Amino acid sequence: MNKASHQHIAILIIGNEVLSGRTREANAWFAAKTLFDVGCKVSEVAIVPDIQERIVTTLNRLRKQYDAVITSGGIGPTHDDITMQCVADAFATPLLEHAETIRLMEAFYGANALNDGRRRMARLPASASPIICEKSICPGAKMDNVYVFAGVPSIFESQLHAVLTDFTNDHAYHRFEIEVNLPESLYAHGLGEIQNQFPTLEIGSYPSHCGTQPSGKICISGLDEAAIALAKATILKLIKEITNP
Amino acid sequence: MNKASHQHIAILIIGNEVLSGRTREANAWFAAKTLFDVGCKVSEVAIVPDIQERIVTTLNRLRKQYDAVITSGGIGPTHDDITMQCVADAFATPLLEHAETIRLMEAFYGANALNDGRRRMARLPASASPIICEKSICPGAKMDNVYVFAGVPSIFESQLHAVLTDFTNDHAYHRFEIEVNLPESLYAHGLGEIQNQFPTLEIGSYPSHCGTQPSGKICISGLDEAAIALAKATILKLIKEITNP
Repeated sequence: MNKASHQHIAILIIGNEVLSGRTREANAWFAAKTLFDVGCKVSEVAIVPDIQERIVTTLNRLRKQYDAVITSGGIGPTHDDITMQCVADAFATPLLEHAETIRLMEAFYGANALNDGRRRMARLPASASPIICEKSICPGAKMDNVYVFAGVPSIFESQLHAVLTDFTNDHAYHRFEIEVNLPESLYAHGLGEIQNQFPTLEIGSYPSHCGTQPSGKICISGLDEAAIALAKATILKLIKEITNP
Repeated sequence: MNKASHQHIAILIIGNEVLSGRTREANAWFAAKTLFDVGCKVSEVAIVPDIQERIVTTLNRLRKQYDAVITSGGIGPTHDDITMQCVADAFATPLLEHAETIRLMEAFYGANALNDGRRRMARLPASASPIICEKSICPGAKMDNVYVFAGVPSIFESQLHAVLTDFTNDHAYHRFEIEVNLPESLYAHGLGEIQNQFPTLEIGSYPSHCGTQPSGKICISGLDEAAIALAKATILKLIKEITNP
């Protein structure tokens, strides 16, 4: 079982529209939620512009640093869609028309409608395999430990689901949240001690600053449900002791 | 005028809660929109976990690569709030209690209420200056070209506004969008030629894949309003020629 090889995932979002604030990033968020639920961890997200050198440099760093990289965006037919070329460049391999994809696209669009733009979307790095999903005739690609997905959220989501078994861990992550209406500073010390007692869990404190009263949530997450239950009880005891000293 | 030194900005989001999909990232998006409107460009966004080595390594890369870095998150009182220490580590400088901030916090909370958690939030890297905003008594920090902001969106936004003059360019960026109900592949070639005619502008094509008909937007952005107007007219002519050949 090679499942352990896909524990730590990086997401590479490619697109000027995100960096200019035009578009609110949605795909890294979706991937983070989806991978959390199957027991994998997003270890880093990088958002870079549609610039060849920046994509190649970042992709090469991430694919060596993490078990797998999921890219989002830049696989359409227009001039700003350069991701497939960049993946090929990162692996120093040519970008080639994928014969099977051309056949599928001819069947879908009709052979006469296969213009240059659509042919462009049938190119894959040599030795990459296409990722076929329900939402688009144009494939994503898997090249070594790099998964190349579309930027359109519905297609991105469909492509992730199409390969999700590659990312499934033996255990899912679990999360439990405790609402706390106290200033963080009152429980900070005690919570730090509880984190030390449960080193396999992530315990975070997230104030919300809504209204005038302090409010926020303490969040416990990890793979070990029994440890989460014990940490939860310990935190609730701490909060009770602070509230009713 | 040192305004040209802050043209290319990186955003460093620090927080397990974003990488686990618990929290949808909001601050990089807000900063991207806000900086776009004052003529600055977000050149990269990085999201990393609450791990000292990962924060320090990423911060050191970004602050050398770009004109300025804005960090978000990890400046509260709890054990997972390690950003100020990481900034100090990145600059190989000690983290010290900031006397003026302690004074302000004593005045705000009362001297007896200044517990360890709150004192923790009064620490700044040596030679950093505090960033005071309307939404929090606990300061952010400016250390060389690094701006350290909170993760809570209302505080992050207030801190960015407090230092926005540092980022103001002589010209604002402008954006114009054209709605197009055609498959991208039909205008991809022509649009690429128009991009080549206007090298100072960014022209992007963003399909939306809503419903069964092709739809999307062509987005033109840049500093030069006259060039945007000319590119807009050229693109509208292209779309008209394709629609009514």
